[in-house]
Amino acid sequence: MEVRRPISISDAVSRVMKYELNQAVDYVPLLESDLRFLAEDLLADHDVPPFNRAPYDGYAIRSEDTSQASLLNPATLKVVGDIGAGSLYRSELENGQAVRIMTGAKIPNQSDAVVMLEEIQTYDADTITIVRPHHHNENISFQGEDTKKDQVLINKGSIIHPGTVALLATFGYDIVPVYRKPRIGILATGSELLDVHEPLQPGKIRNSNAYTAASQVKRAGGIPVMYGKLPDELDACVDVVTDALQEVDAMITTGGASVGDFDLVPQLIERIDAKTLFNKVAMRPGSVTTVAEKDGQMIYGLSGNPGACYVGFELFVRPLIRKALGASALHLKRSKGVLDRDFPKPNPYTRLVRGVVHERDGVQYVEPSGLDKSSSVVALGEAEVFIVLPAGSKGYQRGEEVNLLNLQDQKGSKWPWDIPTVSYR
Amino acid sequence: MEVRRPISISDAVSRVMKYELNQAVDYVPLLESDLRFLAEDLLADHDVPPFNRAPYDGYAIRSEDTSQASLLNPATLKVVGDIGAGSLYRSELENGQAVRIMTGAKIPNQSDAVVMLEEIQTYDADTITIVRPHHHNENISFQGEDTKKDQVLINKGSIIHPGTVALLATFGYDIVPVYRKPRIGILATGSELLDVHEPLQPGKIRNSNAYTAASQVKRAGGIPVMYGKLPDELDACVDVVTDALQEVDAMITTGGASVGDFDLVPQLIERIDAKTLFNKVAMRPGSVTTVAEKDGQMIYGLSGNPGACYVGFELFVRPLIRKALGASALHLKRSKGVLDRDFPKPNPYTRLVRGVVHERDGVQYVEPSGLDKSSSVVALGEAEVFIVLPAGSKGYQRGEEVNLLNLQDQKGSKWPWDIPTVSYR
Repeated sequence: MEVRRPISISDAVSRVMKYELNQAVDYVPLLESDLRFLAEDLLADHDVPPFNRAPYDGYAIRSEDTSQASLLNPATLKVVGDIGAGSLYRSELENGQAVRIMTGAKIPNQSDAVVMLEEIQTYDADTITIVRPHHHNENISFQGEDTKKDQVLINKGSIIHPGTVALLATFGYDIVPVYRKPRIGILATGSELLDVHEPLQPGKIRNSNAYTAASQVKRAGGIPVMYGKLPDELDACVDVVTDALQEVDAMITTGGASVGDFDLVPQLIERIDAKTLFNKVAMRPGSVTTVAEKDGQMIYGLSGNPGACYVGFELFVRPLIRKALGASALHLKRSKGVLDRDFPKPNPYTRLVRGVVHERDGVQYVEPSGLDKSSSVVALGEAEVFIVLPAGSKGYQRGEEVNLLNLQDQKGSKWPWDIPTVSYR
Repeated sequence: MEVRRPISISDAVSRVMKYELNQAVDYVPLLESDLRFLAEDLLADHDVPPFNRAPYDGYAIRSEDTSQASLLNPATLKVVGDIGAGSLYRSELENGQAVRIMTGAKIPNQSDAVVMLEEIQTYDADTITIVRPHHHNENISFQGEDTKKDQVLINKGSIIHPGTVALLATFGYDIVPVYRKPRIGILATGSELLDVHEPLQPGKIRNSNAYTAASQVKRAGGIPVMYGKLPDELDACVDVVTDALQEVDAMITTGGASVGDFDLVPQLIERIDAKTLFNKVAMRPGSVTTVAEKDGQMIYGLSGNPGACYVGFELFVRPLIRKALGASALHLKRSKGVLDRDFPKPNPYTRLVRGVVHERDGVQYVEPSGLDKSSSVVALGEAEVFIVLPAGSKGYQRGEEVNLLNLQDQKGSKWPWDIPTVSYR
């Protein structure tokens, strides 16, 4: 029987991160760019504001005309024009003159202040009266105060959300350069697997891992390419994986990963002449995760256990997808939480317990979601985080601070996480 | 000149939440269900596990056969069969017998324990030896221990993520009932607006609000329907909005919302015979937000200021989209943070400052992103939160705790937020 040597999570992640998926650039319409990753730095193509402009509706004036203005001695100015949004006042403003101006319109030459509409005491079509001095540059939004031309506003590798779209539109990106979504092949193996639409049969279960992994690929920013499911037959799996590697950027198999008679992954890796990076990780669930590479392409042999398959994806597939998308924080976002339940049992492996978070008084309290077994599919349903319980000879108590890895987040964390190294002997 | 009476954010939100968008159900393939909202409770159609099964590769045995087993006196059992994943052992297991069993396979009748492969001392094709007693029910995953048939596992109105997909696949939902995405019409008004692809011209700016709002609609779970942009001409706007209300579930206009000669929204509301819910909110940015309804359909007159438009959407449009999607927490997620910068200036209106978050030692520190003006489009680019600074006669100091409204979150918070009521006179 094959003996596998477990390595720490950190070591396993490090071995994977030496590789990368193919990276390429797509050009997509602005309206289709949401949640894609910028492939170029987002640059201001002009100053913002592009000209000195009125921040409010009101009247553009010369401030010196109001220097003596008071309630008893109001300044009276002649209204000589009207600047609608998008239009211009083409003359110079002279002393004693005012121009009606709309929010956002360009301040006329020689004008250096705007009187807000609400501050005008009396006005008619021809004159306004102003009852207080206005200072030089009062109520003006200055050209370039928001940003200057040629400034980098958002770095490439950032995910596009509505705030990014605001800038892309402002600076004329009707077509947006984004990193191509990596294509990740998914094959489920296991003679026990039924299709999702099939009725249950004795001894069999429905194929859930392939669909879950597909959803994880999409959440990470990739495109899942489905290769269906196969019974535990080596030749068929070799054929599918060999073909798939021509079409996708990385390949995931689920099932057949552990040590046993029918276990496919070790034989598959050998048959396609790939190199195993590791085949056992000192973590639960997911200890029998295998990662291999062939000519720089990754082949993931994830466990058939739903919980283990899910963990293996998030730790070892997601960061390479994020790397291909140019992101800077490639790994699950780490935060701190407080245990809301005891975990009395010590474990020689670091545990990643699927958990839910309840915030009370600004503190994130966590407890397991559903049954705490790797085979539990229900626990995945509501999971928001992995609760990280480092390996060791002791259990954990309610009230202890722990690391959390956030599953729904798009921001990510940089490596290394603050997870103690596993001291597995 | 029209005088507008500002109402508090709470009051404004409450007025909007009395209405609802049309709600309907779509049926989508499982692989296209990500980020949709379940329209039915997700029900277990069978026990999980569906039968007693082996959690590890090993041998199914009768535990009584090992009651005297030790290193010096190993129990020797005859291997009478082999149960691959998905296959069944159809005989009864007799005393002195063992059956090779794969992870996940069904335990044979009369067997009550599994010996892990790693624990077998010596074995050949015909016999195994076991060196310790195994207890009744050792290493068995029991039918229904993860969940029982007919249990509701996820409530309708929940967003679908990979964990949900795991359950949907397990329970046979190859077609998933989800709430239809509300269709939200968007029209930008303003004679100053250029298309995104157009070069800048003096006095003009590119239309960014319509694209930003479209992205916000998508993030909230809806479908944006673009009605382009129009100059500040009432008749054309009336025509577009009248037609749009036949096609969409709600209509957004941006621009023309404030008080002034060319301001369209009040006239538009009047011309289409809609009822104004409010036209001023005691908040910055976004004080000149108008919301109206006609025959139960919402018309939003959002400001032309990028920051104000963004805020108006998140406070007043997003929760109605979420309601149509069946969500239970309709509003932006509230959390606590600590100011990393002084805000010395008091404000008669509650401020929603666009901010970025830096976590240090488990505390979320926040500071403004970019220029703190409603017109700043750069501040939107990196904004992760609104920092809520309640109205009042004092400013705020670095180190003070404040409420944050999270912009990138999908979980949401229920109403009311813990935001002090604005005491604007």
